[in-house]
Amino acid sequence: MKTISTAKSHGGIQGVYAHHSTACACEMTFAVFLPPRSGAKPLPVLWYLSGLTCTHQNVMDKGEYRRLAAELGMIIVCPDTSPRGQTVPDEPDNWQFGCGAGFYLDATQAPFSANYRMYTYLTEELPALIASEFPVDMDRQGIFGHSMGGHGALTLALKNAGRFRSCSAFAPIVHPSTAHWSTDAFTKYLGEDQAAWRIYDAVSLIEDGKRFPEFLVDQGSADSFLDNGLQPWLLETACKDAGIPLTLNMREGYDHSYHFISTFMDDHLNWHAQRLAV
Amino acid sequence: MKTISTAKSHGGIQGVYAHHSTACACEMTFAVFLPPRSGAKPLPVLWYLSGLTCTHQNVMDKGEYRRLAAELGMIIVCPDTSPRGQTVPDEPDNWQFGCGAGFYLDATQAPFSANYRMYTYLTEELPALIASEFPVDMDRQGIFGHSMGGHGALTLALKNAGRFRSCSAFAPIVHPSTAHWSTDAFTKYLGEDQAAWRIYDAVSLIEDGKRFPEFLVDQGSADSFLDNGLQPWLLETACKDAGIPLTLNMREGYDHSYHFISTFMDDHLNWHAQRLAV
Repeated sequence: MKTISTAKSHGGIQGVYAHHSTACACEMTFAVFLPPRSGAKPLPVLWYLSGLTCTHQNVMDKGEYRRLAAELGMIIVCPDTSPRGQTVPDEPDNWQFGCGAGFYLDATQAPFSANYRMYTYLTEELPALIASEFPVDMDRQGIFGHSMGGHGALTLALKNAGRFRSCSAFAPIVHPSTAHWSTDAFTKYLGEDQAAWRIYDAVSLIEDGKRFPEFLVDQGSADSFLDNGLQPWLLETACKDAGIPLTLNMREGYDHSYHFISTFMDDHLNWHAQRLAV
Repeated sequence: MKTISTAKSHGGIQGVYAHHSTACACEMTFAVFLPPRSGAKPLPVLWYLSGLTCTHQNVMDKGEYRRLAAELGMIIVCPDTSPRGQTVPDEPDNWQFGCGAGFYLDATQAPFSANYRMYTYLTEELPALIASEFPVDMDRQGIFGHSMGGHGALTLALKNAGRFRSCSAFAPIVHPSTAHWSTDAFTKYLGEDQAAWRIYDAVSLIEDGKRFPEFLVDQGSADSFLDNGLQPWLLETACKDAGIPLTLNMREGYDHSYHFISTFMDDHLNWHAQRLAV
């Protein structure tokens, strides 16, 4: 792991780091906020997964998470959203596929299967690196994210319920198998057989029996992607049918941007802190 | 005035607007945060001036001012740092002069004097527009800023003590007449006669008899510009000699970035709120 930058922020350290990823076969960058520490006790860790077009940096610049994370004593890890680099196949003009749009899955289709393995990266490789390099208590992990990253948070939590104690999302893509902005990417990453898509789709995972203790979702009412891509009511129905408690807050007048995320960041951090016994 | 964008944020509205500036002879962009309002009462207004290379957007993205400004009920206005556009003379490779480096003065030297009139823009034209377009109480104005914008805040306050009730700065350039990173710009904007520079230099203004009730300054100890450009001890000496109360907080380990600014943003907002009788 190499350090790209560090800066003191809200009493802690906001760092940006890079390493060669075996899972993604390229260099990967990520951000870690380390809150101020009063002792040697390891700290809980909260994973934030970002949305389409983002890198680790968008939430670092605009998420407004450091003040309260410093106060609560939580480490915040912000990975990138896809593999990147000259050797990584991409469609530069397509913001819904390729670089910036990894969808937190392991691609099975050539040529994307060589690099687009964000699921393995986030469930195996990066946690091992974080555990070795930072003072984290890996028994106290939570996960949240925005939009495509909300999809990532929900699906990683459902598939790894033993790893995460808490999961929340801002305006998540809850059913990417049917949303118009993800079906093209799923076809290219996973092939045309939609049965193979279900293990990377929160609503399908719940329908197929995966469970998680509870979810928190915030959704802006003025989000331009609400009706044609996000459709949180699909998650609401799936959770209700499965008996999974879901707190779904519709936020009047908020859009899909970091203005929405930063407004409700404190609520989500406090939600995770309670469940991570901070 | 035309609206570039608006988004609900922390219960208020973060807007970006543009208008044709007569003072600067070009289109100018600025940001305004309007907190949630419970009645028709006009609100105090706090002006934030940004540093070299910035536009209105840097602090909007990274300043983390909206949560507390919403709570306190303060309007935050964030102007650009210079005129811009194809007709504005510039040195694109020089980050310390031209576009992004207006130094909040009225240039007297051709060809810069046609556009680089940020002092008139900020003391006459933009306040009039803000007063006409937003529910502001112009009897309750404060000003703050960062680096070159801290210079702007200090000099505007000293020259317009009747307009502003409060003034603070993050890592301000307190004596641009002597700092290596501003003498070239001052020469080009104002000419070689350094006597003409003194009305745009906080330390010189105080030496020449200008007064303000009190200042708050925060400065990071790990700021790479501390010794060769910022030198807050020059302001400390000038304030001491003039009997101006100065709270100068040296912040251990903080650099010159928005990580430093956002960390101490709440302190500054509360300082202004107290003095603006919020």
